[in-house]
Amino acid sequence: MPVNLSAPQAKALLAIAGIKLGISSAGIKKVGRPDIVLIEMAEGTTTSAVYTKNAFCAAPVHVCKQHQSQTSPRYLLINSGNANAGTGEQGMANAKACCQYVADVADVTANTVLPFSTGVIGQQLVLEKFEAAIPNAYQALLADNWFAAAHAIMTTDTIAKGVSKQFELDGKTVTVTGMAKGSGMIRPDMATMLAYVATDAAIEQTALDALIIKATNQSFNRITVDGDTSTNDSFVIMATGQAGNATVTDLDSDDGQTLYTAIAEISQLLAHAIVRDGEGATKFIEVTVQQGVDSEECRQVAYTIAHSPLVKTALFASDPNWGRILAAVGRSGISNFDLDKVAIHIGDVCIVDGGQPASTYTEQQGQQVMAQDEITIRVSLGRGQASDTVWTCDFSYDYVKINAEYRT
Amino acid sequence: MPVNLSAPQAKALLAIAGIKLGISSAGIKKVGRPDIVLIEMAEGTTTSAVYTKNAFCAAPVHVCKQHQSQTSPRYLLINSGNANAGTGEQGMANAKACCQYVADVADVTANTVLPFSTGVIGQQLVLEKFEAAIPNAYQALLADNWFAAAHAIMTTDTIAKGVSKQFELDGKTVTVTGMAKGSGMIRPDMATMLAYVATDAAIEQTALDALIIKATNQSFNRITVDGDTSTNDSFVIMATGQAGNATVTDLDSDDGQTLYTAIAEISQLLAHAIVRDGEGATKFIEVTVQQGVDSEECRQVAYTIAHSPLVKTALFASDPNWGRILAAVGRSGISNFDLDKVAIHIGDVCIVDGGQPASTYTEQQGQQVMAQDEITIRVSLGRGQASDTVWTCDFSYDYVKINAEYRT
Repeated sequence: MPVNLSAPQAKALLAIAGIKLGISSAGIKKVGRPDIVLIEMAEGTTTSAVYTKNAFCAAPVHVCKQHQSQTSPRYLLINSGNANAGTGEQGMANAKACCQYVADVADVTANTVLPFSTGVIGQQLVLEKFEAAIPNAYQALLADNWFAAAHAIMTTDTIAKGVSKQFELDGKTVTVTGMAKGSGMIRPDMATMLAYVATDAAIEQTALDALIIKATNQSFNRITVDGDTSTNDSFVIMATGQAGNATVTDLDSDDGQTLYTAIAEISQLLAHAIVRDGEGATKFIEVTVQQGVDSEECRQVAYTIAHSPLVKTALFASDPNWGRILAAVGRSGISNFDLDKVAIHIGDVCIVDGGQPASTYTEQQGQQVMAQDEITIRVSLGRGQASDTVWTCDFSYDYVKINAEYRT
Repeated sequence: MPVNLSAPQAKALLAIAGIKLGISSAGIKKVGRPDIVLIEMAEGTTTSAVYTKNAFCAAPVHVCKQHQSQTSPRYLLINSGNANAGTGEQGMANAKACCQYVADVADVTANTVLPFSTGVIGQQLVLEKFEAAIPNAYQALLADNWFAAAHAIMTTDTIAKGVSKQFELDGKTVTVTGMAKGSGMIRPDMATMLAYVATDAAIEQTALDALIIKATNQSFNRITVDGDTSTNDSFVIMATGQAGNATVTDLDSDDGQTLYTAIAEISQLLAHAIVRDGEGATKFIEVTVQQGVDSEECRQVAYTIAHSPLVKTALFASDPNWGRILAAVGRSGISNFDLDKVAIHIGDVCIVDGGQPASTYTEQQGQQVMAQDEITIRVSLGRGQASDTVWTCDFSYDYVKINAEYRT
C-alpha cells in the first residue's frame, strides 16, 4: 500500500550512544500489542521539541510544555492507541500520573518525563494499564531497540518508519537515527503526528532550538494528507553529545551546517514516509510553487492544490483533469494575480503557459505523466523569486474506508 | 441518493410573466440529451448577477461581465456538459460566437446575451453544435418550461432542482421561480454552480443589486460540498415587473422586505438542494457557530469543520467521533481562543462544555444523534454576539467514485 516505501530493516536503525529504548504492552487497544515506548536519555543530553499548533492540544502536549519549562528531560514516554486528547482535567491528571510511574521506577522527578500519546481522541487513559506496563518498559531498556520502538508507536500506519545516517563531524563519526508515526490527521504545523530523532553529536541548546525549527519547516511542516492538524503532533530531537565532537554552537558554522543537513535529511525522509503511507495513498505528490513574491504565498497556492479533494481524486484516478489544478490555483486567494504570467506543469508536461492552455499539450502526454506513482505539480506565478514545496498524497476509496471504520 | 430531497413536480414550477425558456440538444456530451437552455426576458426586465471569485474564471463569466457593463440583458444562454473554462482566447471567442448565434435568430445585438457554461473544464466548445441547436431552442421558447430547463442544466446532479412561491406584494400576486444545478466543486463565494431566479415583481436596479448580494450571503455563499470553488459559478435574478406592483425602490421598505424574504427563501432552498444532492452525500449537515466576535470568525470555524475530511467521513459512518470536531475547532486559526468558554453540541447532545468533555455525554446519545440523516453541529465560542451558519454534506465512497470516474 505505501507508495515506494518499505519498512526499515532491523539492522538499518543504528543505536545512538546515550539513548536506550524500552518497549512493553499495556493492552490499550489490543492485548499483547506493543504500545508503550520509554526512551531514556543519558545525563547531559540536549533536547528540543516542537508541538502542534491546534488550540485544542492534547493533555500530554500541555504536560510536555510544562515539564520542559521546569527542567531538562531524561525520559520520553510514548503510548499508541489513545491520544489522551479532548479529555479535560482528568486527562491532564492522567498524563501526569503516567510520568510519575516512570519517576518511581527510574528514581527521577516526574517533571523530567515528557509524555506523548497518539490514537483515538476523547477517551480517558486507563491508569492501571500504564502502572503495570511502565516498569516492564523500564526493565527492557536497550540501546539497540529503535526497530521495535518504530513499530510500537504505529496507529493506522501500515508500516514502521525509521532511518539512520552516519557522517563525519569534527573528525568524529556521528550517528543520527529517527522514527516517526502518522498516516491520517496530517497537515502543516506539526504533522507527523509523532517523530523522534536522536544523535550522539554535541550541540548547544540554542543552536538545537534553531535547528529544530529550520528542519521542521523543511519536513513535517510541509506535508499534508487530509488538511487535519492533529491535537497531539510532536517532534523531538535529542543530542546526547557522546560522539566526542566539539560542541556545535552556531548553526551557520561548517559543523553546524553538516549537522543541520543530516538531521534535515532524516526529518524530510520521515515526513515523506508519512505521506507515502498516508491513509489510502496510492501516489506521492510533490507540489512546488515558484516565482512568488514570498514563500508564504507560494505555500498558500501549494496547499490549496494539495488539499483539493477534486485534485486528489483525479490523481487517484490517474485522470489528467488539469482543469481542477487550474481551478485550485484560481481560488487560492492570492491578491493581484496576473494570470497572463502563470504556467503550470505536471512532471515535464506543460499544461498552462502564459495563463492559457499550452498549445503543445496533448491528452496522451497528460495521461502518461498522471499514470506515474510519483508526480510533481509545478506552478510558476511569474511575479517574484520565492518558492516553496509541499508533499501530499492522493485521495482514494481507502481513505474513506479507513476513516469511516476507524473506531469500529 | 439525495438527502431528503425529491425532484420538483412539473406543475410545481410556475411560469413567470415576461420569461420564456427554450430547450434543445446540442449533443455536447450525449446525442439527444437536452443540454441547451435559452431564457428570454421581456423588455423592461431588471437583471442582477453575481459570479465566481475564482481568479481563473471561465470564458463565459468574462463575457457576461463585459456584456452586462454594456447593456441590459435580454437572453441567457446556458449549456451543460462543457464549462468552457481554462480555454484561453479561443474560449472567449467561442462564448461570443454563441451569443452571436442567439443575436442572429432573435434579432438583437450579441451583447444583450449572457452566456453560461457548466461541465468539464479545459475543452473547447464545438461551435457547429451550438449553431445548430440555438435556433431550435429559440423556436421552443415557452413560459411554462422551467421543469424541462431545470433538467437540461444538470451535470453530475442526480435530480433536478427547482422551486416556486407565490405571495402578495402591494396587493398583487407575485410569483418567484428558481432553478439551480450543482453537486461537486461546491464551496463558498458562489457555489451553485448555476442558479436562476425569476420574478414578475417590479424592483429598481439598485435595490435588486442589493437584494442579490444579501440573498447570496444567506444561501449560495454558505454552502460547501468539497471546498472547491468552481470557475463558472453564477447566480442571476430576473425581475420582469409584470405583476403590477409599485416598483420596489428600497429593500428596507415593507414591500422590499417581503420581496427579499421570498427570494432569499427560494435561494436558500436551492442552495440546500445542491448540498442535499452533493456528490456522494448521505447526510445534510448544518454547522452553526455562535457567540463569536464577528460573523467572519464564525464562518472561519464553521468552514473548518465543514471542510474537514475526517469530520465528513465520521458523519458518513454515523460515528460520534466528536474528537474530530473538537480538533477542527482547535485548528481553525482564530486568535486568542479561550477554550474554557467553548461549548459544542451535536443536535441536542452537548459534547463539550466549558472547554471540557461534557460530563453528561454518553456514547449512546452520540450514536443516536449521528445516526440521523439531518445533523446540526453547533459551536459556541463564548466571546461575542455574532453567529453564522453554513451547510454541507458528508464524505462517502461515492464522492471518490464520482470524481475519480468523472471524465471516463
